[in-house]
Amino acid sequence: MKLNFTKIANDLPVTVPFVGPESQERENAFSFSARLGANESVFGPSKKVMNAIKGKAEEIWQYGDPESFGLLQKLSEFYNLPRDNFIVGEGIDGLLGNLVRLFIGPGDEVISSLGAYPTFKYHVDGFGGNISLVPYNNYYEDLDALMIAVKKIRAKILYLSNPDNPMGTFHSKEHIQDFIDNIPDDTILCLDEAYSDFVNKDELASINVEQENVIRFRTFSKAYGLAGLRVGYGIGNKKMIKAFNKVRNHFGVNKLGQIAAEAALGDQDHLNTVLKKVDQSKKDIAVLFQRFGFTSLSSRTNFVPINSGGDGKLAAKLMSRLIQEKIFVRMPSVSPLNSFIRITAGNHNDLVVLDHAMNKIIREI
Amino acid sequence: MKLNFTKIANDLPVTVPFVGPESQERENAFSFSARLGANESVFGPSKKVMNAIKGKAEEIWQYGDPESFGLLQKLSEFYNLPRDNFIVGEGIDGLLGNLVRLFIGPGDEVISSLGAYPTFKYHVDGFGGNISLVPYNNYYEDLDALMIAVKKIRAKILYLSNPDNPMGTFHSKEHIQDFIDNIPDDTILCLDEAYSDFVNKDELASINVEQENVIRFRTFSKAYGLAGLRVGYGIGNKKMIKAFNKVRNHFGVNKLGQIAAEAALGDQDHLNTVLKKVDQSKKDIAVLFQRFGFTSLSSRTNFVPINSGGDGKLAAKLMSRLIQEKIFVRMPSVSPLNSFIRITAGNHNDLVVLDHAMNKIIREI
Repeated sequence: MKLNFTKIANDLPVTVPFVGPESQERENAFSFSARLGANESVFGPSKKVMNAIKGKAEEIWQYGDPESFGLLQKLSEFYNLPRDNFIVGEGIDGLLGNLVRLFIGPGDEVISSLGAYPTFKYHVDGFGGNISLVPYNNYYEDLDALMIAVKKIRAKILYLSNPDNPMGTFHSKEHIQDFIDNIPDDTILCLDEAYSDFVNKDELASINVEQENVIRFRTFSKAYGLAGLRVGYGIGNKKMIKAFNKVRNHFGVNKLGQIAAEAALGDQDHLNTVLKKVDQSKKDIAVLFQRFGFTSLSSRTNFVPINSGGDGKLAAKLMSRLIQEKIFVRMPSVSPLNSFIRITAGNHNDLVVLDHAMNKIIREI
Repeated sequence: MKLNFTKIANDLPVTVPFVGPESQERENAFSFSARLGANESVFGPSKKVMNAIKGKAEEIWQYGDPESFGLLQKLSEFYNLPRDNFIVGEGIDGLLGNLVRLFIGPGDEVISSLGAYPTFKYHVDGFGGNISLVPYNNYYEDLDALMIAVKKIRAKILYLSNPDNPMGTFHSKEHIQDFIDNIPDDTILCLDEAYSDFVNKDELASINVEQENVIRFRTFSKAYGLAGLRVGYGIGNKKMIKAFNKVRNHFGVNKLGQIAAEAALGDQDHLNTVLKKVDQSKKDIAVLFQRFGFTSLSSRTNFVPINSGGDGKLAAKLMSRLIQEKIFVRMPSVSPLNSFIRITAGNHNDLVVLDHAMNKIIREI
């Protein structure tokens, strides 16, 4: 017997965009002392979120609202845009899958950056698309080169993250606006703004939902501290949003996630407190590594890219040693980004543990 | 500007497999007094589940384990099968989408029953498949006719639910085993057993994970009372399971859902208590409607199909009146199944409210 998969499915490799820290814990038979690899918010969600979840936990026997209406309403008020300009999904990851599915079939052209978010590439591969990867320019996604490539290849989707993951760099709103203004009509600009809550609102290009070929993705997984509940959202033209409803898993977003996201959006004070803690922690992390002779990039996210001072092998060794010391960190996968390791903003205890581990590692080297 | 969707996406209608009760509440500007339409478990999850969720709620800033390893381990122990025979997803709905994606492309043939689960058809349509729908036979999915159709059409997937939704009928394990034994090698049998927890384990055909072309789907949304947390699972051959990992949203299952499902599986006493309550409630619902002159089908699920005594119009009218009386119920969508309305097992208060509403409705007619 041979399972009669589609050609696309049959040809796909068994790859995983990200190995979870839990897998590493199982392999090593230990528990991480610090969890600084997935850019989660160690500062956690708002108390209002926790109260909302605990208050509604008894209702988990009920399916969530397939329209996520309450959350759409809150997003609508928050952004002062109609509800039908928003789509809610199982994290940005889920929405990226839907977006790719809506536009990409076998051989369709897509552009991203070399070393950018692997899960986007995973989805493009998954639908048989042809992805071209443009190198970063000095650790920035290279807007000029991306624009040249998209016009040359006539790509159907261009993926851009800003602030950037994995490098933490940030393009000004003027540059992004210029990019948006020049994207070809027949290309979808997928602007991943998962980390946009870490920059000031007035530093972001304004949202124009009249433009049909731009969709912006944001999330409750990062600054709002709700990674475990899987709630992301897209902001776009209503024609684009409507299309998501043709293919999405209508009951895919869980009820506690919906409730938590609504409460999170309603507690901007908590968000602001988190942003301050993240800023302080990033400074502390940069200083900590500087004491051991490492430089870092200035980052507009909740993580700090630390320069290993060597090539990918040296960075991989540093990462590996940190993992052995029970500190979960990750690093970019391709050169030249892979001379860095990426440390998520942590709390006081995380940094104490990190300092201790680095002391030990440096003594050995 | 014209959004350059794939042909499949462009041709898809904007349909929704199920309208949520929340939409009806918003339209009517009321709240339902009884929620008996989606076959959720009004008896709720186990106290151990609630404790597990509340105990781990502080960890929602962390992504869930993308492998759902803990839950796989629990499933492995529960079924006495290796972990790599299980796949966990965002409800059976999410897994059905993955399954269809793995096997179905434009024009590929699929078979289901006329009036069976709309979400399966939604996914087949969504990937451009060609679905043929075999009529029920006396409110049972027609195994003989399905087998004839699958052999004639050489369908790539055949969908069968047992116990059946929406009619609650049940095929014996001998009949199902015979069906499994005769399914052609190049057809995938998708056996949706969402309601299998409501029958005795020894009434179910045994699970043979050596057979590559059978996948069985089960869920924590029904008997375990976790609909809102979106956790379903598939049991199948490891080659089949491996393929899901090529396309699924690896971080799609939320952390509290994973924790809740593990705890739920570990509290079979609660499950047994729920099953008793469901049985009593189904009897009470049948008797209640009998007093008003309606017959019902004997159901092996957590719902009772009530015969309107007329055609689809009469049933639709009855459903509509119940909804006006703030009782959420649903009904099958096509003839002849649509002469029934479907009432989910409820608690004492639900049945009091239902009785009151039916008294009022019958007096009017």
